[in-house]
Amino acid sequence: VNIPRKNFRSVFKWGDPNHEEILDSGIRRVLKEVFGLSDDCFSQPFLAGERQISLNKASALAAPAIAELREIVGPENVETDDFSRAYHAYGKTYFDVIRLRLGMVDTPPDVIVYPRSDQDIHQIMSWCSNNGVPLVPFGGHSSVTRGLECPHGGVSLDLTRHLNQVISVNETNSTVRVQAGIGGPRLEQYLNAFESGYTLGHFPQSFEHSTVGGWVVTRGAGQESTCYGKIEDMVRAIRLISPVGTITTKDYPAMSIGPDLNNMIMGSEGTFGVVTEVTLRIRAYRPQNVRYFSFIFPTFEQAIQTMRLAMQAEIGHPAMFRLSDPEETDFSFRIKGYDRKIDDRLLRLMGYHPRKRCLMYVTAKGDPDFSNLVERKISKLARQNGAFALGSKPVLTWLEQRFSSAYLRDPLMDAGIMVDTLETAVTWDNLINVWDHVRQTIKKRSPAVAMVHLSHIYETGANLYFTFLATMDRDNPIDDFLQFQASIIQSIQQHGGALSHHHGIGRMMAPWLEQELGPDALAALRALKKHFDPHNIMNPGGTLHLD
Amino acid sequence: VNIPRKNFRSVFKWGDPNHEEILDSGIRRVLKEVFGLSDDCFSQPFLAGERQISLNKASALAAPAIAELREIVGPENVETDDFSRAYHAYGKTYFDVIRLRLGMVDTPPDVIVYPRSDQDIHQIMSWCSNNGVPLVPFGGHSSVTRGLECPHGGVSLDLTRHLNQVISVNETNSTVRVQAGIGGPRLEQYLNAFESGYTLGHFPQSFEHSTVGGWVVTRGAGQESTCYGKIEDMVRAIRLISPVGTITTKDYPAMSIGPDLNNMIMGSEGTFGVVTEVTLRIRAYRPQNVRYFSFIFPTFEQAIQTMRLAMQAEIGHPAMFRLSDPEETDFSFRIKGYDRKIDDRLLRLMGYHPRKRCLMYVTAKGDPDFSNLVERKISKLARQNGAFALGSKPVLTWLEQRFSSAYLRDPLMDAGIMVDTLETAVTWDNLINVWDHVRQTIKKRSPAVAMVHLSHIYETGANLYFTFLATMDRDNPIDDFLQFQASIIQSIQQHGGALSHHHGIGRMMAPWLEQELGPDALAALRALKKHFDPHNIMNPGGTLHLD
Repeated sequence: VNIPRKNFRSVFKWGDPNHEEILDSGIRRVLKEVFGLSDDCFSQPFLAGERQISLNKASALAAPAIAELREIVGPENVETDDFSRAYHAYGKTYFDVIRLRLGMVDTPPDVIVYPRSDQDIHQIMSWCSNNGVPLVPFGGHSSVTRGLECPHGGVSLDLTRHLNQVISVNETNSTVRVQAGIGGPRLEQYLNAFESGYTLGHFPQSFEHSTVGGWVVTRGAGQESTCYGKIEDMVRAIRLISPVGTITTKDYPAMSIGPDLNNMIMGSEGTFGVVTEVTLRIRAYRPQNVRYFSFIFPTFEQAIQTMRLAMQAEIGHPAMFRLSDPEETDFSFRIKGYDRKIDDRLLRLMGYHPRKRCLMYVTAKGDPDFSNLVERKISKLARQNGAFALGSKPVLTWLEQRFSSAYLRDPLMDAGIMVDTLETAVTWDNLINVWDHVRQTIKKRSPAVAMVHLSHIYETGANLYFTFLATMDRDNPIDDFLQFQASIIQSIQQHGGALSHHHGIGRMMAPWLEQELGPDALAALRALKKHFDPHNIMNPGGTLHLD
Repeated sequence: VNIPRKNFRSVFKWGDPNHEEILDSGIRRVLKEVFGLSDDCFSQPFLAGERQISLNKASALAAPAIAELREIVGPENVETDDFSRAYHAYGKTYFDVIRLRLGMVDTPPDVIVYPRSDQDIHQIMSWCSNNGVPLVPFGGHSSVTRGLECPHGGVSLDLTRHLNQVISVNETNSTVRVQAGIGGPRLEQYLNAFESGYTLGHFPQSFEHSTVGGWVVTRGAGQESTCYGKIEDMVRAIRLISPVGTITTKDYPAMSIGPDLNNMIMGSEGTFGVVTEVTLRIRAYRPQNVRYFSFIFPTFEQAIQTMRLAMQAEIGHPAMFRLSDPEETDFSFRIKGYDRKIDDRLLRLMGYHPRKRCLMYVTAKGDPDFSNLVERKISKLARQNGAFALGSKPVLTWLEQRFSSAYLRDPLMDAGIMVDTLETAVTWDNLINVWDHVRQTIKKRSPAVAMVHLSHIYETGANLYFTFLATMDRDNPIDDFLQFQASIIQSIQQHGGALSHHHGIGRMMAPWLEQELGPDALAALRALKKHFDPHNIMNPGGTLHLD
């Protein structure tokens, strides 16, 4: 990470802090229409965070303690300066960003340590256990669930500096073994560059700024999960270093050896120990075989019906299978100015009306005959459900900017616009119900944008991804946001949506976890936590509601 | 189950005790050739088990205790007679059968209770907790890992009498919710008979005599797992009643809500509590779309190569994907007398030689264009790897008798032939190594038959299923077998095969579990056990090496 400026903005900026994303005229136009913003809003950034960082919380670790850590990993791998502590205090959720914009660093670690090996981690963990010091694993900095915070200070264990290598690729088994601190692009490029060409196929929105370890401990999902699966479908083996010992699972293709340990470690969010190594299934990288196709549907219901039938038809799964609801569809039409073009008038004449129509983007991968079959079958189902085919271009355009929408949060917040996301998973029979009620909850705040898409599609249901925009309460931005957010989470839970499909729980969703799992299930997780971490040093302070 | 005769044979017989399977002339011929048996061996059954059952172990529960149980479930749902106790003492592994043939019932429950509801189970579990009485869940009676034994007596909780119903089918979600005591045929027939026609697609060898609960707690796999997955891939939600509370997971299609509870319960083999309800994904039942095809390969290596490439080619997965190694291939040729026919001479002329050639059976299901594509692609790969296509007939013949081979154990043991199986999972790069070494271990006993097949195929590896036949030591059949079996298990473990792919661990594999998982992983499972079952009443006595 290139961090040249030591101000708050350089901590909360998504990606390169030197590159400022700007809102194009199309977005500005829509924001003005929806929120009644004036041009002034775009000229003077609100809470720009340009103040130099200085923490009012001194490190709780005295010099001799820091010296002992330096002894373990070398002095160059220990940091205690204010910028590093602020950088490791939060992830990237809206709550984190707004706090940084206000100059609040509530949960900094006392020290950042960059381990060079498993051996280093063992020693650091022993040191933390012996001294009762919290230890919080840190990867790509992209948590959106307050998973990286250090509410009790302690050590932020940053795996990205040294433990970021591919250990080996096994071409016979189609697996790759990596250190947990490796980032998405480095791993994907490494695999693509192989003579035979491989891909992991895991492309979360945070792809550029997240690590394998982070994906695994939160149970992440990528944009092409419909064919490649969630990260838990790719994982074959894990090494977990916990305060009471090390678990190294084996990379068997399947097994019947008691409760599944990989699935016990995946989702543990740093509360059981540190994941240091992962073996993942890989697939062939064959960009030449990819089919890109897209549709517009007259209604959301018809588009959902198409997705459900496609997933239950046993025709093979598409790679990316993505549907925007009417509001997201209209929003994307409007910011691109399509709503003023002749094409749009034609679409309306054909029966694809604003506030009802929906965009679907699809890719199919694999063997060329396989991807062709998937395209042919889905196209037929789409036509039967009233869709009009829009060809490959919209998908290719979307893919070019697939990671860019997250960058817009910075200029949006500069303009005083709150933007955040919440997501859930639902069975098919409950999809419209959850979508409708959660949208109603968001819309209680007026004006508000509530855009929804489905992007991870299964035989028995799908995810729902809510993006909501509203004007910030400039006098009380934090409480205002937290109340709004809580109402949405509550609405998801009340109507039977999962607390999370792929973001995880962290400290943010933790207050709702007991209601989600039931007290007896939470008690089982707490028993595991107590076993792995008897002195409660691993990522303590409310993650997964375990302490 | 129809159990008219109250002798030992009616306990250990596979299936209907009134129907005696016979060894046809082909099998007899081969057995005579391999083991030098005389005709006498087939006329006078060895240890036929026709003695009436009487246990020399009285029930440890006094009359007032039994009366309390009768109070809970009704007197008709409590059994204490010797036959019922013997019937619930063992599963169906060779060790169980040989003990019953010898009239040994080492591990009978004191009482068998047939609960009518979750409420009954809660009450029985409380009663057991309060009285320190073991509680062992009992399903289809088909455990091959000594998972059902009651070494400390107590209650055998038989779910098959009452808790055997489909609760609901959700056609939108493609799921079925069942009580755990339902058996394979009842569930499958129920689903097939639906107007739209559904299938679970789970056909283990024990299909006719096993239950959903048993599949789930052992992580079972069926003959078509290559497309339908193992049972853990089908499960969406589970209810577990444990001594410290009840966990009811939700049927979301995917989630990111901490460690996965379904995967913590699956594989727990009755040691955490009783699984009472399961929600499973279902698929369309479309027998008219199935493609059946088969091949003979010149070598095992070329056949394995074909399977590996097919699974890694992203062409869609076949449903059944089954390969016999050279010895299993030759054995099946010989018992059918093919080795004496003209067809076989032709095959030899074409280069498919005994002791090298291998049979592969495949089915492809789903949409007709999908199953056609899978057949076409696999056929091409097979041809490229030297195979000769044998058409659909061998597969159809095999499917007709798909569940019958297990029945042969009874007449084989009557003839003094020991027959049992062990199974493992391996990555592709270790497959030949494990196959070769384990075969060598079996062949140290001479004469011995060592037949191997692959029947559960994955992108990163496959299972290996070993069937071994040898003559019994008529003077010391138990120790002789146990030593032989231990040497095979040890060989699997030593060469890097999984301790089990789908049979589970039970008490049989438990002594090898710590070596398999490592002490720190086993400690985590023990912590969970201690949490769920603080008084150690759930299936105690060594299952999963947890106590």
